Order: sequence, then C-alpha cells, then structure tokens
Amino acid sequence: MSNDVIAALGEVVGQDQILTGDRIGEDYGHDEALSQLPRPPLAVVRPTSSAEVSGVLRVASAHGVPVTARGSGSGLSGAAIPEPGGVVVSFERMNRVLEIDVENHVAVVQPGVTLLELEEATAEHGLAYPVYPGELSSSLGGNVATNAGGMRAVRYGVTRSQVLGLEAVLATGEVIRTGGKLAKASTGYDLTQLIIGSEGTLALVTEATLRLYPRAAHQATVLAPFRTVDEVAHAVPKVVTSGVGPLILEYIDALTMAAITHAQQLDLGIPAEIRESAQAYLLVMLEDQHQDRVEQDTQQLGELLTELGAVDLYVLPGHSARRLVEAREKAFWTAKAVGANDIIDVVVPRASIPEFLRLSTEIAQRHGSTVLGCGHAGDGNVHLSVFQPDDEVRSVLLRELFEASMKLGGLISGEHGIGRSKKRYFLELTDPTTIELMRRVKRAFDPEGILNPGVLLEA
Amino acid sequence: MSNDVIAALGEVVGQDQILTGDRIGEDYGHDEALSQLPRPPLAVVRPTSSAEVSGVLRVASAHGVPVTARGSGSGLSGAAIPEPGGVVVSFERMNRVLEIDVENHVAVVQPGVTLLELEEATAEHGLAYPVYPGELSSSLGGNVATNAGGMRAVRYGVTRSQVLGLEAVLATGEVIRTGGKLAKASTGYDLTQLIIGSEGTLALVTEATLRLYPRAAHQATVLAPFRTVDEVAHAVPKVVTSGVGPLILEYIDALTMAAITHAQQLDLGIPAEIRESAQAYLLVMLEDQHQDRVEQDTQQLGELLTELGAVDLYVLPGHSARRLVEAREKAFWTAKAVGANDIIDVVVPRASIPEFLRLSTEIAQRHGSTVLGCGHAGDGNVHLSVFQPDDEVRSVLLRELFEASMKLGGLISGEHGIGRSKKRYFLELTDPTTIELMRRVKRAFDPEGILNPGVLLEA
Repeated sequence: MSNDVIAALGEVVGQDQILTGDRIGEDYGHDEALSQLPRPPLAVVRPTSSAEVSGVLRVASAHGVPVTARGSGSGLSGAAIPEPGGVVVSFERMNRVLEIDVENHVAVVQPGVTLLELEEATAEHGLAYPVYPGELSSSLGGNVATNAGGMRAVRYGVTRSQVLGLEAVLATGEVIRTGGKLAKASTGYDLTQLIIGSEGTLALVTEATLRLYPRAAHQATVLAPFRTVDEVAHAVPKVVTSGVGPLILEYIDALTMAAITHAQQLDLGIPAEIRESAQAYLLVMLEDQHQDRVEQDTQQLGELLTELGAVDLYVLPGHSARRLVEAREKAFWTAKAVGANDIIDVVVPRASIPEFLRLSTEIAQRHGSTVLGCGHAGDGNVHLSVFQPDDEVRSVLLRELFEASMKLGGLISGEHGIGRSKKRYFLELTDPTTIELMRRVKRAFDPEGILNPGVLLEA
Repeated sequence: MSNDVIAALGEVVGQDQILTGDRIGEDYGHDEALSQLPRPPLAVVRPTSSAEVSGVLRVASAHGVPVTARGSGSGLSGAAIPEPGGVVVSFERMNRVLEIDVENHVAVVQPGVTLLELEEATAEHGLAYPVYPGELSSSLGGNVATNAGGMRAVRYGVTRSQVLGLEAVLATGEVIRTGGKLAKASTGYDLTQLIIGSEGTLALVTEATLRLYPRAAHQATVLAPFRTVDEVAHAVPKVVTSGVGPLILEYIDALTMAAITHAQQLDLGIPAEIRESAQAYLLVMLEDQHQDRVEQDTQQLGELLTELGAVDLYVLPGHSARRLVEAREKAFWTAKAVGANDIIDVVVPRASIPEFLRLSTEIAQRHGSTVLGCGHAGDGNVHLSVFQPDDEVRSVLLRELFEASMKLGGLISGEHGIGRSKKRYFLELTDPTTIELMRRVKRAFDPEGILNPGVLLEA
C-alpha cells in the first residue's frame, strides 16, 4: 500500500483516525481464534459514518487494497484477521444506539454497539434483544457478520432471526438499505439475509435494525445431572418437544462442568456422590411474564427430566443460576486457560447429538486426542474443546469431526463461522457446485475481491 | 421452441408428461393475479424427481428456453405466468410428504405438497406447520417462492422463518442442497434464505425441510369493534407489545367485514347498532397448551382492548371463530367477486398503519377510487382491494400507494411478491444500486436468464 493510499484514506477519515506503523495496537491483528497467528494490517481506519466507510471503500477499490471489517474482535474463526498489506476498518467509533422504537419493538444500532450497551439501552424500556452469544463485549456488527447464536437461540432464534434491515456499503462504495422496521417482506431478494453470516466478504454493515421483545419478568433454572452423556443427549429433543419452550437448554459434560465451576469458584451445592456418578448435566432455564406459569412449567420439566433418567434435580436460586450461566458463557476462556488447542462448534440435527458425541469420542481416541465440551443442545450446536497439540494430527482430527457432522446432515459451524480457521475444511468438504455458486455471489457484490479476501471462499 | 426441444423434454419426463397445444389446460397460463392476462406456455412438463427437473433445465439451458415454475397457481402477482414461447414446470406430481421427523420437529416435503396435505400429515403427530396464507390449496414450493405469510405470521413468522433447508436445481441443471434439519448455521452464505422469496428466478426448489411446532391445544378468539379505523390501528402495537403473544391479529374494515360475513352467510350475533357505529374490527386469536393460560390472557386482552376504545367485545365460540377466520382467509375471493380491480399488500412498520391508512384513503379519493381492506395488522401488512376500473388511473393510484408505503419505511409487498403485476413499480421506486445488485445476484445463479424472465427484475 503506497503512501498515496494512506494519504487518501486519511483524507476520508481524518489524519488522527488512520493508524499506521507503531500506532497500530496489537489487538488489530487478531481475533480470538485459537489456531490463527496474529497479523497486523498496514493501516487501521476508524470511520464515524457510512459516508466515511463509503469513502474508504472507494479508495480501497480504486487501489485494489484488501479490507477487513472489525467489531470487538471477539470472533472465534479468524475472520477479523487482515490480509497482509490490507486495511482494517474498525467500527469502534460507530457505536451509537440510534433508536429504541418501543411501538415497533425495534432497535436501530451502529455496528460498533456492543451487546452490553444494547442490553442497557433496551432494559430501561422493558425490552430485550435476545441474542446472547456468551461475550457481551461483542459488537452487533460482528454478530451480524457471523450470524451469532448463543444460549437463548433455542427460544428466540439466532441473529438472522432478529435482523430486520441493514444499511451496508458495497465494495465499490455505494450505500444500500435493505429491509426496514418490517416484520416481513416479499419485495425482491432478501439481501439482509444474504449479508448476515457473510463474514465481511459481501459488504460492510453500517447500521442494523433489530427486533426487540418484551423482557420476561420471571425465570427459573433447573440443573439436572445424568449418568451418561448419551442420556442427556437423548433427553434434549424430549424437552424441546414437550412444549415448555425453554429459554436455555444446554448440555455440559462433567469435566467441562468441573472446569467452569472451578474457574468461577462456584459451588452449586451438588453432593460429591452425585457429581461422581454424573457424566453430564442438562441446564434448562425457563422464563415467562407470569410467575405461576414458570412454576407450573418447572414442575412439568422436573417430572419429565426424572422420567428421562436425571440422577437428581436442582432448581437453582437466582444468584447461582446467573453465575452458572455466566460460567457456561465463559467456557471458551476456561478451555483456553486449560490449554485447549482449538475449539469447534459443529451443528447437527438435534436428535443426532448422541450419535455425534459418540463418534467424536471415537475419532478423538483414534487420534490419541481428547475432546470435551458443552453445547446449545436444543439447537444441535455442539461446542468441543480439542486437545491435540500436534498441528497435523489435529488437522486430520478436525476434518474427521466435520465429516462426521456432515454425514449426520450437519454443517461445520453453527455460529462461529468459517473465517480463516475452518476455510480449508469448508472448501474441501462442501459440494464444489455450491462453493462455485457462492463465489459467483461474492463476485456479484465484490467484483474486485477486496472485501475480506482469504476468508471463507478464497482457495 | 423447436420440435427438437419438445422431443428432448419429452425424453426427460416421458412423452405422457409433456403437454403441448390443445393438451395444455387453461390453468397453466395464469395464477390469481387480478391485473394480468393469461398466456399459455408452449409446453408444460410434469417432472417427478429432481433428476428430471435437472434434465428439463439442461435442455432449456442448452436452447435458451424460458422456464416458469408452477405450484398450485394460487399466487397473486403473476409470477406463475409463463413467457411467450416458454415452458411451465408444473410440480403437481412432486407432491409427497417425504418425512415427518418428530424428534427434530421437521417435515421434508416435495414442492407440490399443499398446505392442506401438510396440515393432515402433521396433525397425526400433534405437530403443526404454522404458515396459513389463506389458501390451503397453495403448494409449499409456491409458498417458498413468494415467502408466503398469512394470519399466523405475527406469532410464528413467515415462510422464511420455517424453511431450514432446500434441495434446488440451478438453471444449468446442477442440483444443490442447502441447510438441513438444522436450527442454525454459520457455514457460508445462506443460500436457503436467498432462494426463498425469489419467485422462481434463481433456482427451482425440489425439496424443502420445514420447521414444525407442537400443536397448541387451546384457543380463544376475540372480536372487538372500534369506532374508527384509526383507533383499531393504534391498538395494534399495544396488543403486540402487551405480552399476550397473539396467534392472529387482524384488522378488518367495516365494509370488508360486511362483505366477507355476507359471502360466508355468517351471523356473528353483533347487534345492528354496534355494527353501525363500528368502522373497523380487530380480530385476535390466542392459543396455548394450557386452557387456564388462554383464559387469563383473554381476560387481560379484553381489558386492554376496552381501555383502547373497543365499543364491545365478543369472545367467539369455536365454530363462529373458525368460520370468521375462514371468511377472512377468503377475503381475496370476496373482493374479486364484488369487482375489485386489483389487490395489493404493502408492508409498513406496524406503528405506521394508521398513517398509511389515512394516506391511502386520501390518495384513493384524489383519484376518484375506493380502497377497502383488512390486514395482518400485527405485521404491518395492509391488504387493500382497489376499485378503479381505468387501467391508467389505477396505475397512478397504485404507484402513489406504494410510494406512501415506502416513505413510511415500508415496501411494496409483504407476502404476495412482485411477480409481473408490481414489477414496473418495483423497478421504478427501488434504488437503482439495489436493483443492479439483485440483477448481478440473478446472473450469479442464472447466467443465461432462463428462469422466470419477465418476473421481478427484467426491465
């Protein structure tokens, strides 16, 4: 990238909002993907408006400079790692909640707004944005780019279910608006949905219109230890189809439970003999506007779980429940701390979780490796920490795990995305016709290929 | 189309499944769009498998023959009307429910399955597919192509919210599979969502995997007359945000109510003086697995509606409720019978319905026309019957109605699609950058432009 380009970008965003050389903080070179090496960009720009983003992309487009969008950098697949010689567009200064529209139940936000900021902005209106991917510092722009999910998706759906409209800037600098404060539309192709989950490769999102919900007043949390992982996994579809409509439905294997409660110094009061007999736990949270309904549903759920083989039942008090959910949210950090070499989040049909877990243990053992985990069981989204320090062995292992998921009708990632870290598996394991079609769609948006090249589709 | 092409198509589907000349039934030349003239295709093919669909598209592609997919022909925008010299691919023989997967809560269907057939297949498992666009003879393939909505969308969302995966055939004959029995995915672009609502212009859908729900055991239906349309429209967001989670939330203006109840010979027992004082009605249906919850919510809803100015409240007995909902579903046929010249279904932000209705009356009066209607009020989806026999005047009127919707942040169609009948307005009123982007996406799927040309995007 020549000094001309730097100068042109500086003119767009202002000289103090372009960082080069030593002024580029270490963070701009990576996200939280465990398997990817950091790589600093040649410049970071920090625009404050879609007009500035448009200007940046016009310059980048004219000079063929690769552009990588960055929210909070909490992604887990390396999609925020820039290309060598590329520019990072950081949305940290486009961080305003533009509107909480109570009558239409929507929020309009800039991409740099974090989930925590949106949580605070909606709470005062008795409303809630329901996507909790575990990292409240993550940005809405990043959530849109990866189609973030999280524990509450079993009740409310993922990011894709909440985004009603976008403002986005195309690679060539044009600004488009898609959708709106609209519950539905059948007016041309749904560009909103196409951009969601595209990992910064199709357009840069500069505004999102999000669906909000009434904040439920009452919750109850039930923790049920089971003798085997298989029993837990078999219980999942039964709970989903029972009609209690869980807000959260997580399975956590015994080692992961021990690690996350230890990391958070959390004592749930489960007797040692129960802990020792339990290979896995089901964590279920219910919510409703009416306390009596929560109680009735908790009763029904308890009876069902007992029938399904739960060793015991713990209705957790609010404080413990919150801390356990938090500990589960931080499972990634715990896995990282105890030395996991990678984490994956395959998605399979909900009823295929037992089979996938059986296969994954078998595959790991065959390669002298360990996989442990927990998962958004109601969604069939299995999060595994992979312990295998050898890169080559781990690569074979991951490939086999992804293949096992796909043989069960699953896909490589439920919510983390493909990014850089899973791209080779994605390109190898996906039908070539589909890959070629996606590449043509990519070219329809970004003919010069400047938006996050190296991520998702590029061989 | 030469005899060679006919012969090649006949080889793919079998000679008895290709119709030409007098063997082409009148129905194949139209759907239910009021403003479009029928136009028979040169041939109709009736494939029985995706392999045959693939073969048909390879032949069509090789000879540049336009192809129009057809389900039940109940569409309202002319998207099933073939091009002159084109082929209709009728899915009437691909009409099998392939699977009801109870554990994963999904159905896998061929595109020719009707909603009524799916309703019957799911009912025996205590499950339900929640999209009720008013015409149960409509096919799932057609529902996917237009992103069908209907009355229950306020609770469950539209077709887009239910489709988890597709099998589809590209213009060039390749068969792709997207998604699966999966609650979520972040594994490349969401081609499922892109194909939904694309009105047969991107690919031909040969199989759909659909989300099912537990069938609710208890329902209650409340009909509330209001003095003015404005009062009804203002009540809508309050009901949505109240937390009772209506299954159905429709407004029906007084003339439309009179027409649909008369057409169905339905006496709701509303005294004449109430009927005379009511300019519009709100129809609300609640449902739950628990009878006591339905009763409690009905109570809460009744109090809210009274506060919001309802003249009276009628909790309709099951039989009357079903018949009123049916009458509302048949509103299109009633409008057609009383001589409506066109119908439209703009979508606006829910809270903008009062303003849109005010504007639409004003615009209609200015053009010496009448607009009457009802709508999926909870979704901001306003269905208007347009009475104006003069084509030119009506065209100006429609354009102004669409512009009014778009100025309020709305779009031209909430669920009927653009098709042929609204294409000129769509192309004129939509930002050219967006249209060009959609055209590039179209070319990414269909480089030769053989799939439903003349619909949606072609100038």
